[in-house]
Amino acid sequence: MITITYDKLNEVLKEILVKAGFTAEESVLCSKIFADSTLDGYHSHGVNRFPVFLKTITDGYVQLGAHPERQLALGSFERWDGKLGPGPLNAHFCMNRAIELAKESGMGCVALQNGSHWMRGGSYGWQAAEAGCIAMCFTNTMPNMPSWGAMEANTGNNPLIMAVPSDDGHIVLDMSLSQFSYGKMEKFAMDGKKLPFDGGFNAAGEPTDDPKAILETKRLFPTGYWKGSGMSILVDLLVTLLSSGKSTAKIGELEAEYGLSQVFVCFDAKQMNSDKRHQELVDEIINFVTMAPSEKEGKPIEYPGSQTKKRRETYLKEGIPINETVWKELTELL
Amino acid sequence: MITITYDKLNEVLKEILVKAGFTAEESVLCSKIFADSTLDGYHSHGVNRFPVFLKTITDGYVQLGAHPERQLALGSFERWDGKLGPGPLNAHFCMNRAIELAKESGMGCVALQNGSHWMRGGSYGWQAAEAGCIAMCFTNTMPNMPSWGAMEANTGNNPLIMAVPSDDGHIVLDMSLSQFSYGKMEKFAMDGKKLPFDGGFNAAGEPTDDPKAILETKRLFPTGYWKGSGMSILVDLLVTLLSSGKSTAKIGELEAEYGLSQVFVCFDAKQMNSDKRHQELVDEIINFVTMAPSEKEGKPIEYPGSQTKKRRETYLKEGIPINETVWKELTELL
Repeated sequence: MITITYDKLNEVLKEILVKAGFTAEESVLCSKIFADSTLDGYHSHGVNRFPVFLKTITDGYVQLGAHPERQLALGSFERWDGKLGPGPLNAHFCMNRAIELAKESGMGCVALQNGSHWMRGGSYGWQAAEAGCIAMCFTNTMPNMPSWGAMEANTGNNPLIMAVPSDDGHIVLDMSLSQFSYGKMEKFAMDGKKLPFDGGFNAAGEPTDDPKAILETKRLFPTGYWKGSGMSILVDLLVTLLSSGKSTAKIGELEAEYGLSQVFVCFDAKQMNSDKRHQELVDEIINFVTMAPSEKEGKPIEYPGSQTKKRRETYLKEGIPINETVWKELTELL
Repeated sequence: MITITYDKLNEVLKEILVKAGFTAEESVLCSKIFADSTLDGYHSHGVNRFPVFLKTITDGYVQLGAHPERQLALGSFERWDGKLGPGPLNAHFCMNRAIELAKESGMGCVALQNGSHWMRGGSYGWQAAEAGCIAMCFTNTMPNMPSWGAMEANTGNNPLIMAVPSDDGHIVLDMSLSQFSYGKMEKFAMDGKKLPFDGGFNAAGEPTDDPKAILETKRLFPTGYWKGSGMSILVDLLVTLLSSGKSTAKIGELEAEYGLSQVFVCFDAKQMNSDKRHQELVDEIINFVTMAPSEKEGKPIEYPGSQTKKRRETYLKEGIPINETVWKELTELL
């Protein structure tokens, strides 16, 4: 691990993007999304994924220079075609449009067809919260998870994000609908560790906490077994129908994971409650959560976003730990 | 168990409601909601809960004759005050209003403050799907679940519902955010059975599949551990902020579970896609799910709503099995 400042990371990513053909404006935004994810500790969808992201462009799956086009406008609802442009730019654009619609008339919803992988979904939750919006967003993925009772991947882990602005640090939930991600299981396997809970079935069809066994069967558990299984199917239906775009089934027919369907929903917090009332309600809920007795004495009770906030503050002050090989690979692209 | 026809059940419930002071119109709707839930096999939120529902009225927590009042209208978003009226009537009213808003301009969202327990949340998912809408709805509850890392209930199991209309039977997900409900754990404990998976912590703080141990500690698992924990907090934030109503924390200060906050979101399927395209997309997703190899040869792969549909068809034809004591208690109210 080496330590890189946020500004340095942002600068390096931006230069690489310019070199890759992004416009100045696109480079500033796209590097910030990757740098922010890394600053928050989500390296797997930040700096570590950056070379993979670039490769989707050179491989021709992601279209540089593509801009979203509006296909449908119905009051507070709009549908846009992402034209297979860079995922983070498309998603940022759509969340921004949902924010604009919400500022206009209380709420807004934008569905995106032909998106690309948006990297860290939480990025768009933080974006909405920064803009004073209560938000939800959803994406589908390629088939990567068997539904409950199935032997093979027939649905996606279809992440969902929920965000609420707060003066004490926004509250942002960013979760996929598998109990453990492939990335996490690979990390545990590499470290020779067991998962903290059963994460899937082994070859004998028994629940197991052995990540290697699950990586072999590919029968990972949906979040909460049958519950996450049901949600993943419904999230796929929601994003596919609202965007009239590609379902997980259709994405599975492609040679790579692109052309995803996404939905962004925003409510303008200021039109829902006065600033004072909003913060009182948020504090009421978060205080009730965090003031319960903790499992481990002295260990604070966390809520979505609380750990991210702490990590961000630490990394901003002390720099961001980044894998040396990853950093070397990046700087060679300069 | 005795067997009662759907029509008979509906008739008996309706008569009891009339006697309890419901108007003719309210009785027809409210009895149908309870009878439909029972017909679908959700006795715990149908006929078995009916006496408890009536008691919330005689106890004065639920206000007969209360009608929702609009508090805020912002384009496709409306907020209503439920005035603590009967939960199923309030929820049905709000979903209906969300459907109307969606028919007008593509999407609609209704937030309800001072609702009461809506019984089976799936009722409102089916209602929306019957009306040709893609829908989501959410409610909070009293504190009944410890968040991840907490020793005592500091959040609710805050159910969420997602629904999609389909010619082959609507697709309706109805789930709470605890891995197992108290009702289910009590049933397993009574039958002397273990849960199919660990459902909470025992007194030693270890995960256990012993329902009795969890009923004692009250430390039940959120759906998918930390994931359902995060979702429950965000659902509470969402419904409380949008309705400007009571949070789980505030509901916990009351002497009973009432005054809940709920949110109903609808999209008019016809404005999203042509009927043909809608059904093609739904079939594409459901076929991909159900055509995967099954864990148990010959056993069909289920999806949210598929089992309900089969149960409904059976019970309509053969009558609904109902606990004799429950039925006796009901008929004594006539």
